[in-house]
Amino acid sequence: MSLLKQTIDSILPLDNEAARAADARLDTLTKPPGSLGHLEELVRRYAAIRHDESVKPGRGAIAVFVADHGVADEGVSSFPQAVTAEMLRNIAAGGAAISVLARRFGYALKVVDVGVKVDTSANPLAGVTYRRVGAGTRNFLDGPAMTPDETTRALEVGIEIARELAGSGTTLIGVGEMGIANSTPAAAILCALTAIEPSAIVGRGTGLDDAGVRRKIEVVTRALEIRRDALTSGESILAALGGFEIAAMAGAYIGGAAFKVPVVVDGFIATAAAAVAEKIHQGLFDHLFFSHRSAEGGHALALDHFKLRPILDLDLRLGEGTGAALAMNVIDSALDLLNNMATFAGAGISGKVR
Amino acid sequence: MSLLKQTIDSILPLDNEAARAADARLDTLTKPPGSLGHLEELVRRYAAIRHDESVKPGRGAIAVFVADHGVADEGVSSFPQAVTAEMLRNIAAGGAAISVLARRFGYALKVVDVGVKVDTSANPLAGVTYRRVGAGTRNFLDGPAMTPDETTRALEVGIEIARELAGSGTTLIGVGEMGIANSTPAAAILCALTAIEPSAIVGRGTGLDDAGVRRKIEVVTRALEIRRDALTSGESILAALGGFEIAAMAGAYIGGAAFKVPVVVDGFIATAAAAVAEKIHQGLFDHLFFSHRSAEGGHALALDHFKLRPILDLDLRLGEGTGAALAMNVIDSALDLLNNMATFAGAGISGKVR
Repeated sequence: MSLLKQTIDSILPLDNEAARAADARLDTLTKPPGSLGHLEELVRRYAAIRHDESVKPGRGAIAVFVADHGVADEGVSSFPQAVTAEMLRNIAAGGAAISVLARRFGYALKVVDVGVKVDTSANPLAGVTYRRVGAGTRNFLDGPAMTPDETTRALEVGIEIARELAGSGTTLIGVGEMGIANSTPAAAILCALTAIEPSAIVGRGTGLDDAGVRRKIEVVTRALEIRRDALTSGESILAALGGFEIAAMAGAYIGGAAFKVPVVVDGFIATAAAAVAEKIHQGLFDHLFFSHRSAEGGHALALDHFKLRPILDLDLRLGEGTGAALAMNVIDSALDLLNNMATFAGAGISGKVR
Repeated sequence: MSLLKQTIDSILPLDNEAARAADARLDTLTKPPGSLGHLEELVRRYAAIRHDESVKPGRGAIAVFVADHGVADEGVSSFPQAVTAEMLRNIAAGGAAISVLARRFGYALKVVDVGVKVDTSANPLAGVTYRRVGAGTRNFLDGPAMTPDETTRALEVGIEIARELAGSGTTLIGVGEMGIANSTPAAAILCALTAIEPSAIVGRGTGLDDAGVRRKIEVVTRALEIRRDALTSGESILAALGGFEIAAMAGAYIGGAAFKVPVVVDGFIATAAAAVAEKIHQGLFDHLFFSHRSAEGGHALALDHFKLRPILDLDLRLGEGTGAALAMNVIDSALDLLNNMATFAGAGISGKVR
């Protein structure tokens, strides 16, 4: 049996008992019942995903999956494709936004080259994990972005990274990405899975002007037409549109669910990957936290479509896992409160009178 | 000249030059321009309030003002008044939610007794600063909650705490409160300043049932009627409705503006205090950050009325400065990014092509 199939088969339903136990403990703490609002829901969900009513906070890690996209040839990004390799180096060297946030919050940073066009693996960059499936995907207007085999391999890269992190004691994984042009396949994937119009989903990415956005909408619209017959299963949608890092993110979500480690989904592109993972295994969304409502394109529409509540709403549209890192710190704060607040009994606080 | 008058007179307008310099620096960092969204606005605002284009992060502190309210006699809270003194002890002893968050984020915690009914100052509690204006306010249905002199003294307690924190190197102050029944005067103040109906502003506080909420709406409605002639200036509204900690918070906001230290406003009650401070000195809102949209009563309506954008939206309704602490960490994250990300030039990243 394939690693993918085996991992999916090992996903258990949420542990509602653990959630109830955590909830009961929340009500013993010195605060009005329910007054921590959404933080209390984060605690319950964490307990349910971890199958752990003790709800101990542990170690956090952020996995950033990096790859290139053939569709960049269509002029759908305002930055040149060379930036993917340049940012791979910058993220690993500590200069990118996600590098700063991971350092700040004490989260391990796992930077994974899943298929950057420029191959640096012969003289490997410090801090980069090489799991290259190819040197960028094919332009999806010319044919499927990935072969079925590449799709499976990219999904399994994500599973393997999640397994490795879970095995080394990680209890919360943030997932982000970098890849010039990747908001184009992400938009196409979200359109395929929600039936929302490309014009409502496509955004400016790294900063397209109006003409660029129109071109990007045309590219997505054309892809949805010419690949229509392939847009059926999660795997076939991935293969048709790409990319390596989007498939790897979907794999990391599936892996997190199987290994009982909550995964925090970053923004627009990470959400497209989550939608694919949900398509591959219905109910997978329940094992994820959605970090923020991105300012990119129709991210808010997509979250509404899937009835997902993001933790933050800061108009971020940077990617890399930056929104995930900020939201992980909110989750960790909630766990800290559950574990370290006094109880009514312990602190001698009077109870309700009416 | 009074400390209050002197402090108000020393407030300078925002430093827009510093904001522009910070903004220019944001655009040199290795990210698509503007992609940090609201975090970039937080950086600009911080620079403008601090009059400091270097936008260096510094030390954070949280001031929690604690006091009692005579209107508790009307049965407007689901917890007994004794809880104010009990929570004063719990916050200072490290067991309250704000204690956990301050510890977590490395923020100093300043717990100020501005007028708790139970006077513990003879055998002072460790970690409590005593600046008692009285032993709780009077029931505002029986007469003004505070005398004009008490009002000024309570405002000046806040100014003094802000001055002390600023003097010891604090560069970001979070302000919160605790005081059984204080969501009742806060609601009345917000109604007086926004002309929104009590039924749309009054909330459940620490957990009132429907009958309790109806009683609380009646109390607020009656107060607005019988004190109508007094509800003119910020000071007279404070005197009419209370309370000591609400006035102290307003003073802390005014002090922060004067001493160029941004102050982060917590939730419902802290927002009522901010609305009073804005009434006392028009433009004061610009020197504040609003931490979150609370689930208490009509907080969202009040924020909309004043066109204020909160940083977080987590359905919190605990008070104590918990929302402020979480938002301060978002602000600090934004400052960290500005100061520690690589630049396009420094990291050798290619620029935009379209």
